[in-house]
Amino acid sequence: MSTPFEYAEANRQRFFEEYLHLLRIPSISTQPDHAADVQRAAEWLQTMMLNIGMDKAEVILMPAGRCPLVLGEWQGAGESAATVLIYCHYDVQPAEVKDGWDTEPFEPTIQGERLYCRGAVDSKLHVMSQLKAVESLLAQEEKPKVNIKVILEGEEESGSENINAFIDHHPERLKADIAVLSDGFVLDRDQPSMMYGLRGTNSMELFVYGPSSDLHSGHWGGSVHNPIQALTEILAQMHDENGYVTVPGFYDDVVEMEAEERALLAKIEPAIQEEWKQVVDAPQPYGEIEYNTIERIGARPTLEFNGIYGGYTGDGFKTVLPAYALAKISCRLVPDQGPQETLQKIVDYIHQIAPPSVRVEIKPRAFGGAAIILDRNSIAMQSGRAAYTFGWGNDPLFERVGGSIPIAASIMKVVDQVVIMGYGLKSGHAHGPNENIYVDSFYKGINTAIKFIEEVGNRTR
Amino acid sequence: MSTPFEYAEANRQRFFEEYLHLLRIPSISTQPDHAADVQRAAEWLQTMMLNIGMDKAEVILMPAGRCPLVLGEWQGAGESAATVLIYCHYDVQPAEVKDGWDTEPFEPTIQGERLYCRGAVDSKLHVMSQLKAVESLLAQEEKPKVNIKVILEGEEESGSENINAFIDHHPERLKADIAVLSDGFVLDRDQPSMMYGLRGTNSMELFVYGPSSDLHSGHWGGSVHNPIQALTEILAQMHDENGYVTVPGFYDDVVEMEAEERALLAKIEPAIQEEWKQVVDAPQPYGEIEYNTIERIGARPTLEFNGIYGGYTGDGFKTVLPAYALAKISCRLVPDQGPQETLQKIVDYIHQIAPPSVRVEIKPRAFGGAAIILDRNSIAMQSGRAAYTFGWGNDPLFERVGGSIPIAASIMKVVDQVVIMGYGLKSGHAHGPNENIYVDSFYKGINTAIKFIEEVGNRTR
Repeated sequence: MSTPFEYAEANRQRFFEEYLHLLRIPSISTQPDHAADVQRAAEWLQTMMLNIGMDKAEVILMPAGRCPLVLGEWQGAGESAATVLIYCHYDVQPAEVKDGWDTEPFEPTIQGERLYCRGAVDSKLHVMSQLKAVESLLAQEEKPKVNIKVILEGEEESGSENINAFIDHHPERLKADIAVLSDGFVLDRDQPSMMYGLRGTNSMELFVYGPSSDLHSGHWGGSVHNPIQALTEILAQMHDENGYVTVPGFYDDVVEMEAEERALLAKIEPAIQEEWKQVVDAPQPYGEIEYNTIERIGARPTLEFNGIYGGYTGDGFKTVLPAYALAKISCRLVPDQGPQETLQKIVDYIHQIAPPSVRVEIKPRAFGGAAIILDRNSIAMQSGRAAYTFGWGNDPLFERVGGSIPIAASIMKVVDQVVIMGYGLKSGHAHGPNENIYVDSFYKGINTAIKFIEEVGNRTR
Repeated sequence: MSTPFEYAEANRQRFFEEYLHLLRIPSISTQPDHAADVQRAAEWLQTMMLNIGMDKAEVILMPAGRCPLVLGEWQGAGESAATVLIYCHYDVQPAEVKDGWDTEPFEPTIQGERLYCRGAVDSKLHVMSQLKAVESLLAQEEKPKVNIKVILEGEEESGSENINAFIDHHPERLKADIAVLSDGFVLDRDQPSMMYGLRGTNSMELFVYGPSSDLHSGHWGGSVHNPIQALTEILAQMHDENGYVTVPGFYDDVVEMEAEERALLAKIEPAIQEEWKQVVDAPQPYGEIEYNTIERIGARPTLEFNGIYGGYTGDGFKTVLPAYALAKISCRLVPDQGPQETLQKIVDYIHQIAPPSVRVEIKPRAFGGAAIILDRNSIAMQSGRAAYTFGWGNDPLFERVGGSIPIAASIMKVVDQVVIMGYGLKSGHAHGPNENIYVDSFYKGINTAIKFIEEVGNRTR
C-alpha cells in the first residue's frame, strides 16, 4: 500500500468488525460484576497493540476493584523525533434494555446510516479510530516521523481516580511533546469543531444554623430568623440583576476576550443557540447581559447553586422551623481565576453579608482544577485543524466549552501541547439509551487520526 | 362530705391510682397495633363516667382503623341551666425505651416530686383531673348548677380527622354554652396562664421551573437562570430588613393591639424571653422590630419557609443545574386575616416578582383555619381565671400563643364561649422521652376543674 489512507480503505470491513468486537464486550467500569469484561477488553486491546506493530503494550493493573490502564508505545521514529501521546478510554456506562433501549445495548445494531450500541460514541469510536490509524501508519514501509504512545483508561466513567495517581508516579511513561485527548464531539455531522477552552471548578457547602433544634413554626415563628429564609437572603445577594456575580473581586483575574476571539466564537453561536433551544428549553435565556450564549457557557465564569435543602421536603406539610439549611455551591472558572483564591473570596463575602441572627459555616469541597485554555496556534492545535479539515472536508470552528475535563490538567503536567479531538455527535446519546454513531464517523475518525500524526510529523521535523 | 374539694381530698389516693391505671394503658393512636389498647382505654373511661354518676356515656366508634370518641353527659341541672362541655384527649404519642427514656414509658414511676410516664402531661393529666372533678361534684347532695358534657378524643395525636366530621354531623351532641378545652400548659409551676389567642394558618408549595430537564452545570451553567437561584431571589423579597412581610396588603386586615393588651402581654414577656433562650437559643432574636417576643409569636402574623429543596442534596457533590426547585411556605395568621385571602395576596405577589426566565407554580395546601381570639371578659374566661387563682394560689397571666388548635375552631361552631385550660408544664416533655408531671399538678388540676364548674354555675344562674 502506498499510503496509510489506502491501507485503511482496503481494510475498511475488517476494521469495522474489530470495532464491533470491542463494542460487544460490556466493559462497564462502574459495576463490579463486569470487572472480568473490563479486564477482557483491556487484554484484547493490549494484544491488538502488539499485533499492529507497537514495540510494547502493557495492561497495568490498578488497586483492587479498579479497572486497568492499557499502555502501548512505538519508538521507531528515534530519540530525536517528537512523541505523540494518544489518550482514549475503553470503559463504558451501564446500559439495560429497560432504560429505554430499542435494541440490545451490547449487540451492535445497524439501522440506516447509524450503528446503535453502548460505547458506540463514548468512547470506543475513539479507541478504535485511533488504534486503526496507528495500524495504518505502522503498516507502511515509510514509518511515521514521530514516536507514538497510547494510553487507554478503564475507569473514565467511574471517577478516573487512579490514572491521575499513575501520571504523578510515572510521569516518564506518558512523557510526550504533544498529546491528543480523543474523546467528545464535533459540532455537526459535516462541521468539525475544536475545543480550546475548558472551565475550571471549585465547590463548597454553605450551612446556615439558627435555633438549636427544629422548632414548631407556630410556637416560635416570628421570633427567630428562619435559616431557610436567611439562606435565601444570602444566596439572593450573589448575583445582580444583570446576571453578574456580586462577590467582590470575583472577576479580578478573569482574562477578557480579545475582539478576535469573540469574532471566532460568534461563528459557533447560531449552532449553540439552536442546541440551547433543544436541550435547555427554559422560558428565556439568562446570563451576563453583555455576553452571548457560547461566551456565557465557555468563556465566562459562573457561581452556581447545585443543591439546596432545609426543613421538611417530603409529601404533605410539616410546619417546622428548621435548625439549619444548606446550599451546595460551585463555580465554573475561566483563566486566570484560581479555584482556591476564588473560593476564599466567596467565603469572605458570605461572612460579610450573613446576618448576625444566624451562624454560617462554609465547607470547601472538591477542587476540579483551574480552567484550561489551549494555544490555538500550537503545533498540536494546527495539526488537529489540518487533520479535521482533511477528514471532514470542512475547516473546524473553534469552541470554548463550559465543562471540565480533569484528565486534561493531569496530562498537561507531563506534555506541553494538548489537543482535544472528538469524532462523535451530541445527538449520539452518550450515557443515555440508544447510544449511536453515524457509521461514517468511524472512517472519518481513522483518516483524521492518521492525518494528525502525519501533520505533527511534518511540523516537528 | 360537705364540699367537692373535701371529697377530692378524702379520695386523693384512689384518684391517683385511677390516673396510674389509665397511664398504664398504651393508648397510642398512631400505631395500629395499639388499636386494642385505645379501645380498652375508651371502654374503661366510659365505665368510669357511668360510675361517677353521669346519666349516660357512650363509646363512639370511628371509621375502620381510627380511634373512638367517648361521650358522656349529666343533665341533672335541668333544661333551664347552662351546659358546660369538657374536651380532653386520651390518646398518647408513641414511646419506647430506646428513644431515651430512663424508665419504662408505660410504667408510671415516681421520682421525687415527679411522676414519669407517657401521657402523664399530654393529656391523661387533664382527662383524669376533669373526670375526678366531675365525680367530686356529682358526689355532693347539692348537685352542680350547670349540666355537664364530656368529650374525650382518641386521635388528637394522629390528626383529629374524625372529630371534626362528628361535630359537623352531630352538633347537638356537643351543643353547650361554654366549652373548656383542657389541654396544654401553664406558664410556670406556681404561675398559671391563660391562652386567649391562637394564630390561624394557611400553606402552599411554590415550584420554580427552569430548563426542561436537569442539566450539567458545566455544559450550560451561565446561560440559564438556575431555578434554585431564582427561588432564593423570590423568597428573599418576602421579608424586609426590619422583619416585616413585604407582600402587598399582608397586614391590611391585622387588628392592631390596644395599649391595654400590650401591657397585659408585657407581663409575660420576661418568662417568654427566658424560654426563648432555653428552647430556641439562636444567635440573636429576630422579628418585626416594633414588637417584643410574646407579641411576635402570639399577636403578629408570619410568613415562614418550612422546607426548601432543589438539585442534589445528598453526600458529596453533583454539579447539576436542576430543572426545578421548590419551597414549602406557610403563614401564621392573626385576626382578621383570612387564610384564603392572605394566600391569594402571596400568590399575586410571587407572580408579580417572579422573573420571566423561569416559570412559577403555586399549589395551595391545607388551610388550618383562621386565627382565634377569645374574649377575656367572657363568663368562660372569667370563670377560668377564678378557678386558676383558686387552684394555683396565683392570678393567671394572659397569653397569646403562636400555634393553632384546630379543634378550637370546630368547637366554636357549636359553643359560644370557649376557654383553654391546661395544667401541665412545658418542661414536662410532652411528645418526648421522660414525659412527666409534678404530682401536685394533678391535685391542683382537680381543684381548678371543680372550681371552674362552680364559677360557671354562679355566673350563669
